[in-house]
Amino acid sequence: MAEAASQDLLLAAAFVSDAQYNRNIPFKTSPEAVRLYYLYNHWIMRTATYFFIFLNLSLAVFEEPAVYPLPFLVTSVVEVLCLVVFFGRLTHFAKVTLRNVFWKDTKNICIMVAILLSLTDLAIYGVLRMYDVRSIRWSRIVRPIFLINFAESRQIRRAFRSIRNTLPEITYVFLLFMFSLLMFSLMALKLFGERNLQTAEGLPYFKNYLEIVFDLYVLVTTANSPDVMMPAFDFSSWYALFFIAFVIVNTYIFMSLFLAVVYNNYKKHLKNEIRKLAYMKHCKMIEAFNILKEEEGAQFVVREAQWKQLVKLVAPDISNSHRELLLRISDDEQKGFIDKKSFVQLADLLNIQVITLKIRSHPLGQWMPGVYKSAVSRFLRSMVRHRFDTLIIFAALTATILNTTLKSTTKYNSQQILDIVFILRVLRLIRIVDSIQRFRVIMNTLINIVPTMLTFGGLTLVVYCVFAIIGMELFHGKIQFFPANSNAPHSLECGNAALKDSLFARAKYCKNNFNNFASSFIVLMELTVVNQWHVFANGFANVTVQPAKLYFIAFHIVMVIIIVNIFVSFILEAFFVEYSLEKSEVETAIEQKIQELGMGVQEDELQDEHLLDNMESAEHDLEGEGGTKPQSKGLVFKIASKRYRTVDSLLQRMFEAEIPLEDEGPSVEEFLNLFPTAAIPSNVTSESAA
Amino acid sequence: MAEAASQDLLLAAAFVSDAQYNRNIPFKTSPEAVRLYYLYNHWIMRTATYFFIFLNLSLAVFEEPAVYPLPFLVTSVVEVLCLVVFFGRLTHFAKVTLRNVFWKDTKNICIMVAILLSLTDLAIYGVLRMYDVRSIRWSRIVRPIFLINFAESRQIRRAFRSIRNTLPEITYVFLLFMFSLLMFSLMALKLFGERNLQTAEGLPYFKNYLEIVFDLYVLVTTANSPDVMMPAFDFSSWYALFFIAFVIVNTYIFMSLFLAVVYNNYKKHLKNEIRKLAYMKHCKMIEAFNILKEEEGAQFVVREAQWKQLVKLVAPDISNSHRELLLRISDDEQKGFIDKKSFVQLADLLNIQVITLKIRSHPLGQWMPGVYKSAVSRFLRSMVRHRFDTLIIFAALTATILNTTLKSTTKYNSQQILDIVFILRVLRLIRIVDSIQRFRVIMNTLINIVPTMLTFGGLTLVVYCVFAIIGMELFHGKIQFFPANSNAPHSLECGNAALKDSLFARAKYCKNNFNNFASSFIVLMELTVVNQWHVFANGFANVTVQPAKLYFIAFHIVMVIIIVNIFVSFILEAFFVEYSLEKSEVETAIEQKIQELGMGVQEDELQDEHLLDNMESAEHDLEGEGGTKPQSKGLVFKIASKRYRTVDSLLQRMFEAEIPLEDEGPSVEEFLNLFPTAAIPSNVTSESAA
Repeated sequence: MAEAASQDLLLAAAFVSDAQYNRNIPFKTSPEAVRLYYLYNHWIMRTATYFFIFLNLSLAVFEEPAVYPLPFLVTSVVEVLCLVVFFGRLTHFAKVTLRNVFWKDTKNICIMVAILLSLTDLAIYGVLRMYDVRSIRWSRIVRPIFLINFAESRQIRRAFRSIRNTLPEITYVFLLFMFSLLMFSLMALKLFGERNLQTAEGLPYFKNYLEIVFDLYVLVTTANSPDVMMPAFDFSSWYALFFIAFVIVNTYIFMSLFLAVVYNNYKKHLKNEIRKLAYMKHCKMIEAFNILKEEEGAQFVVREAQWKQLVKLVAPDISNSHRELLLRISDDEQKGFIDKKSFVQLADLLNIQVITLKIRSHPLGQWMPGVYKSAVSRFLRSMVRHRFDTLIIFAALTATILNTTLKSTTKYNSQQILDIVFILRVLRLIRIVDSIQRFRVIMNTLINIVPTMLTFGGLTLVVYCVFAIIGMELFHGKIQFFPANSNAPHSLECGNAALKDSLFARAKYCKNNFNNFASSFIVLMELTVVNQWHVFANGFANVTVQPAKLYFIAFHIVMVIIIVNIFVSFILEAFFVEYSLEKSEVETAIEQKIQELGMGVQEDELQDEHLLDNMESAEHDLEGEGGTKPQSKGLVFKIASKRYRTVDSLLQRMFEAEIPLEDEGPSVEEFLNLFPTAAIPSNVTSESAA
Repeated sequence: MAEAASQDLLLAAAFVSDAQYNRNIPFKTSPEAVRLYYLYNHWIMRTATYFFIFLNLSLAVFEEPAVYPLPFLVTSVVEVLCLVVFFGRLTHFAKVTLRNVFWKDTKNICIMVAILLSLTDLAIYGVLRMYDVRSIRWSRIVRPIFLINFAESRQIRRAFRSIRNTLPEITYVFLLFMFSLLMFSLMALKLFGERNLQTAEGLPYFKNYLEIVFDLYVLVTTANSPDVMMPAFDFSSWYALFFIAFVIVNTYIFMSLFLAVVYNNYKKHLKNEIRKLAYMKHCKMIEAFNILKEEEGAQFVVREAQWKQLVKLVAPDISNSHRELLLRISDDEQKGFIDKKSFVQLADLLNIQVITLKIRSHPLGQWMPGVYKSAVSRFLRSMVRHRFDTLIIFAALTATILNTTLKSTTKYNSQQILDIVFILRVLRLIRIVDSIQRFRVIMNTLINIVPTMLTFGGLTLVVYCVFAIIGMELFHGKIQFFPANSNAPHSLECGNAALKDSLFARAKYCKNNFNNFASSFIVLMELTVVNQWHVFANGFANVTVQPAKLYFIAFHIVMVIIIVNIFVSFILEAFFVEYSLEKSEVETAIEQKIQELGMGVQEDELQDEHLLDNMESAEHDLEGEGGTKPQSKGLVFKIASKRYRTVDSLLQRMFEAEIPLEDEGPSVEEFLNLFPTAAIPSNVTSESAA
C-alpha cells in the first residue's frame, strides 16, 4: 500500500533526522512512539485485530437464535474479550497519534461509542435475563461498525463513502422510477381491475392498488414474469402490450439507468479518492525530503547514508542487494546523493515487488549432488516451481482434511473424498486455459478482481449482518423446516397454518428461514440473486404482517440496486483497465533500469519456458540461464508477476495514468476545491494512517 | 444525417460546376441522373420502401399458421407485389449509381439473391400446394434481409456489424464460461449424483450430466434459483456453499464480463464507424470544394453565387432568411466568397435545425383582431405552444379511436374508454417532473434514447423474426390454449398429454405457444425477460424432443447475452455522454454567430418562461420579446431543441468530440490501417450512399 509506505517514510525521515515535533506529521516522533508505531503496524497485530473482529461478528452463530447454541455466559465472555481487544487496539493507536488528531477522527469516536453501546446492552440483557425477562440484543447491529471503522478496512470505508456520495443521484433516478411504477400501476388498475380476473392460484387479479404496485415492482426484477401477465394475456392477447411496454421502460431502461448512475458516480468518486491519496503521498514524500535535505551545490539533496538509514528503517526485510538496486535506480549517476525527483519516487519503488535470484547452484547441489539430482528432489523442485498447481494440491489437501473431520459427524465415505480430490485435480486444466494467449486478458481480469472481491465481501457482510439481525428479530421461529417424512403438525406448511396453499410451502422453501444466523445469510443470498424473492416476501408477510414486505423491498434496493451494481461497475472498470492499460510508468522505469544495469531476467523468457513445460516440468535451471549474461554482483532481478496485486494498487493503476504527478500536485486551494470537506492535513492524514 | 448531406453536397457541386465524370463520385452526374437521385432520396420514396418492407414482414401474420388467416392467393399476390417494389427500388438505385460501384456492393447482391430465393420458394410452394403436398415456406427466413440491406437501414446494419466484430471476443469469454460451467457440473454430479435426492416435483435430482449442465446454465440466468438448490440444501446446509460459489463466479462475474466485453467492443467499433463517417464527410466536402473552387488572391475559394446555387439545390426547402444566415456564418466578413475551412463546415451547418421566428404579429391578429383575441383562439394558440401536451392529447385521441374500433369486436364500454383518456391525462404530470432541474439530465437521457430504440427495435425485430419462423416450424400446434371452462381433452395440459404434471401446464402457460406469429413474438419477449424460460424450454422439449432445448439456449445467447447487453451498453453510453458532453462545437459556433448578429432569441429565456407557465399558459407573445432587440431583417432565429435528435447525431455527438477534424483527417495509410477491409473510396462511399 503506497499510501502507508509514504506515511512510514515520512515518520522514518523525522526519526532519522532527529527532527522535533513537525506540524505535518500526525504521529509522535519520539523513539518510543516510533517503536510503538511499528508494533501497531506489525502484521501479527493487524491479523489479530481482524481475527477478533470476525470472532465478534461470528458470535451471532452461537447466540440465541443459534446455529450451534452456547451458554450465554460463554458468548458474553467472548464478546467482552473482543471489546477489550478493540479498546486496547484503540489505546495503542492513541499512544502513537497526536492527541488533537486522534480526537478529531470520527472513526475513533465511532469505535468508542460502539464499545460503550455493546457493553451497556450486554449488561442490561444480562440483568434482565437473570430475572427471566426476554429482551432484544439490539446492540448486535452495531458490530459491523468495528469492521468498517478500524483503520485497516480502508477499502470498505472507501466503498461506503462512494455509496454515500452516489445516493443523491440514485435518489433522483429512483423517484422517476417510482413515478413510472405508480403510473403504470394506475393504468393496470384501470385496465384490469374491473375484469374479475383470477391468478393461477385463484386469487383476485390486480384489484388492490398497493398489491399492483408490489406485483409490478416484482416484475421490474423479472421475478414473476410471465406469471403476472398470464391472466390478462389469457383474457386478451392485446394486453401483452401493456406488459411489454412496462418491461421495456422499467426493467430495461430504468435498471440500466441505475447501473449507469452507479457506475458513473462510483468511478467519479473513486477517482477523487485515489487522486487525494496520490496527492497526499506526493506531499508526504516532499515533506520527508524537506526534513532530510542538505545543500549540495545549487540544489537540495538527500545524502546516500541517510537514504540507506531511511530505507533500512522503513523496509527492514528487503535484502541488501535489493536496496543497492533501489539506490542505483535513485542515484543513477552514482553521485552519492539523491535529488528531489528521485527521492519522491521512493514510496513507489518500495512497493514494486522485485524477486532476487542468486546466480549460484543450490547449496544441496554443491554439497550432495547425488541427493540433489535424485528423482524425489527433482519432483520437489518442480513442485515448488509450479505455484498454481501447488495451490490446488494444498486446496485438495485441505479438502481431504476437512472431509476426514466431517466423516466423524456425517456419513461420508472414502469414495467421496477421492471424488473431491479428483475434481480438484481437474482444476489443473485451468493452467492449460491460462497458457492460451487469447484468454490471458480475461484471466488477468478475473485474477485482478479477486482481491477486490474481498472489499465487496466486506461490504456484503456488513449489509447482510444488519439485515440478518433485523430479519431474525422479525421472522425468527415463524417458519420451521421438517424433514420429508416428519409427522409434525403442518409439516408441509412449514409448521405454520398461514402458509397453507401458498407458493412458499408448495415450492418447499421451508428451510429458507430466519431461524438462525446461517439460514438468514442463505436467505439473503437467495434474495440477492432476486429470482423468486416475491415468494419469500409473500410467505414471510403471510406468517407475520403484510408490511413485512417492506423489509424485502428495502433489501432489494440496498443490495441489488446499489451494491450489486457497484460490483458490476467494478468488474466493468477492471476489464476496461486491463484492456487499455498495460504497465504503470514507475514499473516500466524500474524494469528499464534493471535491464540497463544488465541485472535482469526477461520476464517473457521465464514465462515462455513456463508455458513450454506446461503439464510436465522439463528440467531447466534458472542458474545456468542467468549465467549467460554479464552479471555485476552475481544476482539477477525480476519484477514479480503483475497478476497478483492488492486492491489499492489496482485502483491506483486505474486512475494514476490520468493524474499528472510530475508537478507539485494541485495547489492547496485547488485541493480544497476538489475535496471541500477535507481538513488538510489532519483529517486526510489520519484517514490514511496505519 | 450529416453523411447523406455531404454526399448530396458533393453531387450537387459536381452538378453546379458541370463537372464531367469524377472518379471519387460513385454516382452519375448527368442532369437526368441527378434528378433521379433526388427522387430516389425523396421522403415519400423512402417511406414507401419501409412500408413495403414491413408489409412483407407482416405477411407472416396472415400466412399459415395465421393470426388472421387469408387465402394463399392473397398473401402470395401481396408478396409478389412487395418483391416487385423491392426490385424497382433496386433498379432505381442502379440507375443513379455507377455500374462498377453498384455491382461491388454486397447489399445489392444480397437483395437480389433474396428476391430470387423468395420467388423460387413461392413458386415451388404454390406448385406443391396445387398437388396438396405440404411443404415448408423456408424463404420466409430471408425476409428480414430486406430490412437490413436497403440503404435506408444504416443504423441496423451498423449494429449488426458491431455484433459481428464483437463476436470473437465474446467467443473467448463464452468458452471460458462454458469451461467453468462444465467443471461446476462435474462437481455437482460427484457431490449430489449418488445421494438419491429428489426435486420438489419428485424427479431424480442431479443424476444426469447433461441435465445438470442445463440446470446450472439456467441457474446462471437465475431463473431456477433457489429451486435448483433446495433438495441439496434440505439434505445439508453446507451444500449451499457450492451454489453460492457457482452464482458468484458464473452469474455475477461472468455475466458482468459479458457486459464488459460487449460494451467495450461495441464502443470501440462504433467509434471506428463514426470516425470513418466523419472522415468520409470531410473528404467529400473537400472534394466538393475542389470542384467548385476558384482562385482569389493567394487562396482558393468558392464564390457566393455558386455557394447559393449549391445550397438551393441541396436543401430546396430552407427559407431565404435561413440561407442568408448560413451565408453570414460561412462568410462572416462579407467578402463575397467562402474559404475552404468555412465551406467544409457546410454539411454540419445544414444539419442544425434553426427555427425562424418572424417578428410580426399573426396575420389573423392583423385582419381579425376580435377573433384572434377570443378565448378559443387563445386556447388554440396555447395548445400549439405546448408540444408535449399536444402529443399526449393526440395519443389519447388515437387511443379513443382505437378503443371505439375495438368496441365493435370486444365488450368495451364507454367507462373504460374514459378511464384510458383519464390515464393519458395523468401523463401530463411528466411535464411537472421535467420542469425540475435535477431530473433533466435523466429525462434528456431518456428522450435521447428513444430514437436509438428504433435501431434496437429493428435489430430485435430481425432476431425475433428469424427465431419466430424457426419456432413455428418446430413447435407449431404442439401446445394449444383452451379457455378456462373448456371441455376439450387434456385442456388443463394444453391439449397435450405429455405435459401432464409439468410445471408448464401447472403454471397455466398454455397460451404461450408458437401457433402463430404474434404468439411467437410474445413467447420470445418472455424468453428475453429470462425468468421461467427453463419452464418453457422443458415444456416445449417435452412435447417434441429433448434437443429442442438447444433452440431456447441459442435464443438466450443471441438475445440476452448479446443484444440486451448492447442495449444496456447503449444506455450506459448515452447517459455518460449526456453527463459529460454539453453542446457539440459546431452548434456552439452557430449559436454564437446568431447571438453576434443580434438575431437570436436566447433559448434559456424561452425555456425559463416555458417553466414558469407550467400548468397554465400565461399569455406571452414571442413577437414583443424579439422586438426589443436591434433586428436587421425583422427575423429572429433559434436553434431547435437539442432534446430531439436523430440516432446518427447522438452517435456522432458521442464520439466527434474525440476526433480531430481540423486537420486533413488521417492519411490514406492510417485510414486503411483503421479499417483494413474498407476499399477506398468505392466501398465506403457506397456504404454511406443514399
